[in-house]
Formats: sequence, C-alpha cells, structure tokens
Amino acid sequence: MTPVKDVFIAVIGAGGVGKAFLSQLEGLSQRLATQSSSRKLSVILVSRSTKTLYSPQYSPLPFDNLSTKLADSTQQTLSLTEVIDFLAAAPAKSILIDNTSSQDVADQYPQVLAKGISIVTPNKKAFSGSFKLWQDIFSSAAASGAKVYHESSVGAGLPVISTLKDLVETGDEVTKIEGVFSGTMSFLFNSFAPTEGSGGKWSAEVTKAKELGYTEPDPRDDLNGLDVARKLTILARLAGLPVESPTSFPVQSLIPKELESVASGDEFLQKLPEFDSQMEDLKNAAEKEGKVIRFVGSIDVAKKVVKVGLEKFDRSHPIAALKGSDNIISFTTKRYASPLIIQGAGAGGDVTAAGVTGDLIKVLERL
Amino acid sequence: MTPVKDVFIAVIGAGGVGKAFLSQLEGLSQRLATQSSSRKLSVILVSRSTKTLYSPQYSPLPFDNLSTKLADSTQQTLSLTEVIDFLAAAPAKSILIDNTSSQDVADQYPQVLAKGISIVTPNKKAFSGSFKLWQDIFSSAAASGAKVYHESSVGAGLPVISTLKDLVETGDEVTKIEGVFSGTMSFLFNSFAPTEGSGGKWSAEVTKAKELGYTEPDPRDDLNGLDVARKLTILARLAGLPVESPTSFPVQSLIPKELESVASGDEFLQKLPEFDSQMEDLKNAAEKEGKVIRFVGSIDVAKKVVKVGLEKFDRSHPIAALKGSDNIISFTTKRYASPLIIQGAGAGGDVTAAGVTGDLIKVLERL
Repeated sequence: MTPVKDVFIAVIGAGGVGKAFLSQLEGLSQRLATQSSSRKLSVILVSRSTKTLYSPQYSPLPFDNLSTKLADSTQQTLSLTEVIDFLAAAPAKSILIDNTSSQDVADQYPQVLAKGISIVTPNKKAFSGSFKLWQDIFSSAAASGAKVYHESSVGAGLPVISTLKDLVETGDEVTKIEGVFSGTMSFLFNSFAPTEGSGGKWSAEVTKAKELGYTEPDPRDDLNGLDVARKLTILARLAGLPVESPTSFPVQSLIPKELESVASGDEFLQKLPEFDSQMEDLKNAAEKEGKVIRFVGSIDVAKKVVKVGLEKFDRSHPIAALKGSDNIISFTTKRYASPLIIQGAGAGGDVTAAGVTGDLIKVLERL
Repeated sequence: MTPVKDVFIAVIGAGGVGKAFLSQLEGLSQRLATQSSSRKLSVILVSRSTKTLYSPQYSPLPFDNLSTKLADSTQQTLSLTEVIDFLAAAPAKSILIDNTSSQDVADQYPQVLAKGISIVTPNKKAFSGSFKLWQDIFSSAAASGAKVYHESSVGAGLPVISTLKDLVETGDEVTKIEGVFSGTMSFLFNSFAPTEGSGGKWSAEVTKAKELGYTEPDPRDDLNGLDVARKLTILARLAGLPVESPTSFPVQSLIPKELESVASGDEFLQKLPEFDSQMEDLKNAAEKEGKVIRFVGSIDVAKKVVKVGLEKFDRSHPIAALKGSDNIISFTTKRYASPLIIQGAGAGGDVTAAGVTGDLIKVLERL
C-alpha cells in the first residue's frame, strides 16, 4: 500500500461553475475516503470577489454549507498575492482551482506555478491571451514540476483538450480542427436555420436565447465571436501553431456595424430587427445551394490558417445536424483520415464543473 | 526540477498493433528525452509467440530494427512466468505492454499487478472474461498501487474508456450507453443499408468486407456478435453493472443457423447467398418505416439491461448517418441530458496502438 498523501486545495470563484464544483468536490472527497485512495483532499480556502473563508492552520474546512459560510465569512479578505503565499507555505503539495474568468488571476499563473502550486481551471483567459503568457505558464510548470490542467476552457466537460493532447503526445499529426465551439451560437443557428422547417427571424432567436439564459447579459459579448476565437487560440496552440492572440486571425462579428456602439444590450436587442434582412439574405443564399449556415471555427494546421465565422454546410453534415446548444469538435489527423468527432453539451455549470473535477482527479494522481 | 525516473518496459505481441506500437514507442522515447521529461523509458524485453529478445542486465535495448532483431533472436524463449519474474526483479518500476489478444496472458494479470508491475493493453480478454477475473485484476492493482490501463479494448484509440471513467469518477450518473462498436459491422451495414441509395446484397457486402481485410479470417468471428458483446461487457462494468460474462445477456448472431457448423470461412461465404433474403426482409421492413437497420450494442444502466443486435434507426439519427467503418459511442448521463457522443475510426493497427501509447504516457505520469 502506498501511504496517503494529503493535498491542499484552494478554490477561488463561486459563480455558477464555482458552486457546482464545490458540490462535486464534496462528492469526490467522500469517494476518495471510501475507496481508500492514496490521496486525501483538504480544502483550506474558498473565496469570491470580496469574501475569503480559510483555515490559517491548514486544517481542512468542513464541506457542509461551504458556500453559505463563505457568504457569511467575517475573516479578512485575502488578496490574490496573499492567497498564493498562503498556498506556497502549506505543509504539503497544493492546488489552486480558479473558477473565475479573471484576466488578473490568469496573469499570475506563471508565479503560482513557479512556487510549485498546481492549477486547475476553466478560465480561458490564461491560455488565450498573449502568446508570451502561454509560454511563461508552461515553462514555469515544466521548471517546478507543478501541473496545469484546463479541460473546461474549451467545450466545458467534453474531452476536447485531453483528446488533442493525446493525439499530439502519441506522435499523431493533427491536420485540421473544425467545429461549433459556442453553445450560444449553436442554439441560435440550429433555431434560425434548422435542417428541417424554416426557423424564426434572427432578432427573435437572439431575444429568445437571451430569455433562456443562453447568452451573456449583453448578447453582443457572444455575437462578436471573441469567445470562439479564444477557444480556437487554445486549440491551435496545443496543435503546435504559435498563435499570437485571439485577435491575430480573422474573426467574423455578427454585430451590425451600426449597433456596435449602442449603449446597452437592451437597446441592441430593440434595434436588431432593423437588420434582420442581412442574416435572412445569408440564410437564403445557403438554402439555394441546399445548405444551411453555421457559425464555426476552423484551424488548418499545415496552412497555418485559423478563422472564425459563418460557413455553409450540407444538411446531412454533422455540423449542420447538431441539436440544441450542443458543441461539436472534429479532428482530422494523419492517423484519423475520417475525423475523430466529439459532440455534446459544451456549456452549463454542471458539465463545466465536471471538467474541472475530472482535471483535479488527474492532477491528484500525478502529484 | 524533479529527478528523472527510469521505467522498464516489456512489450509482448508483435502483430499489427504490436508493430505499430513499437514504432510509436520509439517516437515517444525520443520526445521524452528532448522535452527533458522526468521519465526515461527503457525497453528491456520484446517477445512474440516463439521468440524473446531481452536484456538480462536491464540495460535498454536499442530501438533500431527491434522487430527484425526479435525475429532473428537466438536467445532462449522466456515463458510468461519467466517474463513476469524478470520484470518483478527489475531495479525500478516496470510496465508490461500486452499487445496480444491471449486469454492465457490476461489470466495472469492479477499476479502481474500483485508484483507491482503496471499493465497497458488493448487485450479485451482480461476485462470481458469472468467477473471474478475483473474483480481480481482491480483489487490486485489497488493493493499494490500498480496501474492497469486498457483504452484500446473498446473503440481502439477513441477516448471511450477514459471518458466513461471521468464521468463516473466525477460523480455523474450514466444512464445509457449506446452505439456501433465494431468497425466490421459498421462497414457492412453502411454499405448494405445506406441512408441514400439501395446498397448491395448482404452476402456480397460480407465478401467485399473480407477482401478489404475488414473481417476476421473467418467472417463468422465478426458476425456472431461476440466482439461487440465483449466491449459492452467492459463498458457496463465500468458503469457499475456487475455483468457476469459476455454471454450472460442477449447477443444476436448474424450467422444463419444452417451455416454455424460449416467447416470453413470460405465454405460459409460460398453458401451465404442462399440466406440473403433473410437480411433483405429485415432491411425492407425498416425501409417501410423510413428507417435503416444497424448492428448496435446498448446498456440501460438503471434497468440493468445489456443487449447486442439489430435495431432500426431514422435516417437522420447519428448512428444511421455513420460512414465507412467508423464507430460511434453515445453516453446519456444525468449531467448530459443530450448525449455526449464520440465518433471515428475504431479499428486499425495505428489508431489501436495510439490508444496503447496514450495509456503508457498516462501510466508513466502516475508512477
């Protein structure tokens, strides 16, 4: 029997993903205990923007009502630097779970890793910002031996990053990556240009998506394509392309020029119907070829071409046939002449948290 | 910097998968060296049925022409027991790569693991034999801390086993698993009952599949459904069902009763046209409902029902729309209400070996 290793965990961010994660973490901790695992989790800190709950002596915080206790905490709020120092001084290996989407936190990753603290996160910012930050993160991790896992930064809990890493690490040559990488865009186009039937007006579908909670508070934050561009940046880099930033390749925005600078998301939605004919024309043009339009991202590794925008697909194409708000990601490689395809829910608190929990298990097994 | 750990590797089996694996192993070994990995691979033994090439003093065998040198080896052939003892006595941790499909080797896994030797294999036999062998394997691994990975035992290199394990280990509840698990069956039905056009005669498609090398030497070894039943047994057990054996649930054989006992595969193919009307009737019955027939396996976890056989699908269903000899595996879970789907080449030496190489990397990182 290998001796039991204690591992200290700090969780920052308590939004939708953060709350779902804390609940999954409690389940994981119980399973590790009942399965006589060689790893024992001790949560020693949880925090959100203005609140910190932590255990100064590194004794584990009890799981019951952790979110409520955090909300009620009267402990002094720790700064990010203080959190890092607290973890670095822990009497065993430690892991920072970053459930925020903060660029400020992401910018600290190289320092966190340099101190031997591993990172698990769904935060896209660290891996889709400047190429220098990407390089700093992975060289810092290589030097200290700390791990950094970010499955949920693309396709939530779907095994996208792990599959791409496996392809590359086993010596396969990835030639093309293509797919629908946004649950919001998937929902919008599956409703607006369905493979059967005619679909609603564009502005009506955007309004409906917002009402269902499928868009950001201001839908323009989805329609500008940047979220998809960030995911493509991450995948392209993993496939070996040194992409400089998510704005260094063509990204098609679906925001009419005239509405780019209106004051609010509500005003945007109010004025969007005036521009419905633009999208209708694109849809009709595709229909004349027997096709439908979809908002996709693609990476041609050999040609070093990354792009994000509208493309036409045959109705029988897997990308056209997608349902609901599902994502689909297709890898064409030297070994996989017919693509390796992964498909399913690519957004949502529970499945995003599941990707984080899965990564945490993988890091635990490697510490 | 963590110190470099030497890990000893023995590879048994040098068929299609074994040869592709040795080539990938050479690449992996070089990448580990150039990336200053904390792991160093030393291949100390390769063997196939009647030949063994090994390094009695545990110094690494050079990679160049390993297959040829094995074929030309004049060293005394080691028995499986001798190979295990040789690995157990190695001066560092060791991994047995079993690229055979041998039940005899599989039966030894509990003893191998008990000695602290990890196992990586595409061999289905160990995980789809008796439930007692399954239990012995995993309890033996838990006791010694040795690892056992077998991604390629289902869907070759497709991330099927790892995805299912992640779902279970993160606390999701898998309610249904369904799909096409055989490249041979996929090819046969995609040709015999295509979603567009009419397809050829059943016996002609079977003959063509054999000529293309898509079937076993005797096609009945594919048509009896046992290969699919073995894969379903593995997935059902991982999902928590204590399936006793691959013959303990309904499996539909596509071998006409009258041809079960004919002497050879050739005689079988010769007489198969006499029974074409049986398959034609099934195809036509489905067509009347606007559907196509496919050979699928399914696991209803809640109802504890596992079955393998022909089913009808709408032409637009992802299982119907499969192409070539691709596999498709769909997981319905509590978190994934719309299924998580994995699709792509599920057979072939290169992709099967890639699953083995990927597992080897995962075990190396955990030793």
